[in-house]
Amino acid sequence: MQYFPPALENLVEQFAKLPGVGVKSAQRLAFHVLSMPEDEAAAFAQAIQTAKSTIHCCPVCQNLTQGEGPCSICSSPRRDASTICVVADPKDVVAMERSREYQGLYHVLHGVISPMNHVGPDDLHIKSLVERVSAGGVDEVIMATNPDTEGEATAMYLSRLLRPFGVKVTRLAYGIPVGSHLEYADDATLMRALEGRREM
Amino acid sequence: MQYFPPALENLVEQFAKLPGVGVKSAQRLAFHVLSMPEDEAAAFAQAIQTAKSTIHCCPVCQNLTQGEGPCSICSSPRRDASTICVVADPKDVVAMERSREYQGLYHVLHGVISPMNHVGPDDLHIKSLVERVSAGGVDEVIMATNPDTEGEATAMYLSRLLRPFGVKVTRLAYGIPVGSHLEYADDATLMRALEGRREM
Repeated sequence: MQYFPPALENLVEQFAKLPGVGVKSAQRLAFHVLSMPEDEAAAFAQAIQTAKSTIHCCPVCQNLTQGEGPCSICSSPRRDASTICVVADPKDVVAMERSREYQGLYHVLHGVISPMNHVGPDDLHIKSLVERVSAGGVDEVIMATNPDTEGEATAMYLSRLLRPFGVKVTRLAYGIPVGSHLEYADDATLMRALEGRREM
Repeated sequence: MQYFPPALENLVEQFAKLPGVGVKSAQRLAFHVLSMPEDEAAAFAQAIQTAKSTIHCCPVCQNLTQGEGPCSICSSPRRDASTICVVADPKDVVAMERSREYQGLYHVLHGVISPMNHVGPDDLHIKSLVERVSAGGVDEVIMATNPDTEGEATAMYLSRLLRPFGVKVTRLAYGIPVGSHLEYADDATLMRALEGRREM
């Protein structure tokens, strides 16, 4: 790589640090930046710095937010403050919001309990969740962690932790995804779908 | 995407503008930037601006360079100024330099003649090449554009343009790539390899 000018080499290295970007892709991206108009490149650089400096976690739900105080969901008078949906990741809030079904508040753990990756309960935003529930006014906590081993374990751990406060702890329903084919559903999903069957 | 804070949305949009980066990848990259330490994100943003503001084309060979005056290859006393290798792209200079075989200078066209994409001779750095050759001191011009239709046409066009100046115009050899298998070589390549056979 000693044939590129140093500033270009540095830019390639910066791109190559991004997840899923190899050296060849990084070179392509760096050359693309060089071919951008001056103001577009400046806007790109500025976007990185602005995002990094202005985005932080909401002090209430720990979701990503910008500006002072609680996030727009936590501070909205139209949301039902008696329900908290617990998700692992800010992206999961976006997925839930997209359904337009949920009207309550959120709590973002920023991960799941994963002994394999040395992530314990203290590494997640669990203490602030317990504080929110213990402060009262919460009727139901919906566990919406992913339906994999670690998500299950985290939901199980939290439900035991929250039970003493007398709140209802629920879990998202398992079942056949809408629009999918029965023949391709795995055994565990089918079993859960059968267990969760409802009267029509 | 109205569920992300504006600064994050903006960063996602900036990433999504890059070639080969879709919205999902852009989100992943943006979240990665948010998870970076403050100084790393600043270094990334700085790299974009530095590369964009300091890298320009060498006034002699049009290759990318940094700093004042001609590039390091053009200004090196160890390079043979009587030979010019014409390539389409700065990346091709890197490929040629990697072979450690070539000791002459370069000329980067920044593209090839491509009527389909509305790229004509005037859109490339051809005038400056003709000026270099007409200024004298050049014995040989090696055409090292890609061996595809447009690269061929560009090489052919340039060779006709340069012939009046009495320089030797050559083309990189065609043939079987080293390390490949004869059975997978296409007909055109095999034909060229046969034509270009040499005594052992």
